Amino acid sequence: MKEIIGGPGTVSGLLLRIGQFVFAAASISVMTSAIGFSTYTSFCYLIASMGLQLLWSFGLACLDIYALRRKKDLQNPVLVSLFVVVGMTNNSLNLQVTAMLSLAAACSSAGVVVLYARDMNFCKIHPELPCSRYEISILLAFITWLQVSISSHVMFWILASV
Amino acid sequence: MKEIIGGPGTVSGLLLRIGQFVFAAASISVMTSAIGFSTYTSFCYLIASMGLQLLWSFGLACLDIYALRRKKDLQNPVLVSLFVVVGMTNNSLNLQVTAMLSLAAACSSAGVVVLYARDMNFCKIHPELPCSRYEISILLAFITWLQVSISSHVMFWILASV
Repeated sequence: MKEIIGGPGTVSGLLLRIGQFVFAAASISVMTSAIGFSTYTSFCYLIASMGLQLLWSFGLACLDIYALRRKKDLQNPVLVSLFVVVGMTNNSLNLQVTAMLSLAAACSSAGVVVLYARDMNFCKIHPELPCSRYEISILLAFITWLQVSISSHVMFWILASV
Repeated sequence: MKEIIGGPGTVSGLLLRIGQFVFAAASISVMTSAIGFSTYTSFCYLIASMGLQLLWSFGLACLDIYALRRKKDLQNPVLVSLFVVVGMTNNSLNLQVTAMLSLAAACSSAGVVVLYARDMNFCKIHPELPCSRYEISILLAFITWLQVSISSHVMFWILASV
């Protein structure tokens, strides 16, 4: 089984996990710094979803670091039978679910911001609304989703080709 | 290669395609019957996305009917090399993209409806707003997404295990 870019136990995979972690953290911090975000269900959901992503990415990054330091190849055919079938089915499903949740959270928040900024022109009428902060936070959430989506597709691909 | 439920050229696959078509059509018709939907970008996007889904599901359903009537097994190893690699990579990618678009459209519309119904209580304050129609349309869009998601996962699985 050849090494797949972004797969578990690879440097590219670790970088992907760190990227997920950093962007999810940035998204949460920008959103929480915007005044009045808690009145919007969608924005609270975005924070919850990104928080879940943060914990999950941290866990996977730790696993990657462990694999890289111990020079253990998680893609080794012998370990595959142990790790992949038991652990990765779980990981792949979890990644798919968290990717879906991230996309759902980002899109529902984007729906609210588009309503405010374009359809209702609230952002111009009420300049005290921190619309730009909402927008930046949602953009960061979309970048997080993109990375998680790549991870989950790679994992699903590995799982299916075993 | 054993027959996979929901795969191309199977009865279950055909039923899935017909389901997608019916629910996408229902979602569009309920949304267009709601007054004032066109002022919301998210709802217009939902209609566009469901319209794309409708055409795509129709095309795939035709392919399935053709395969079933001609008794040609699209999962036959000889045809796999012809169909799968050329056509299915395309189909799998397209299905993944349309599944993502459907989820994005449904979630952004749901974000707007949650804002109106829960956060702002607009639906109670302005009873002339067709909130329940919006909700039903979004629910139908979510069911469509679920079916497309199953299709795309099955296709991706077949593609990866070739």
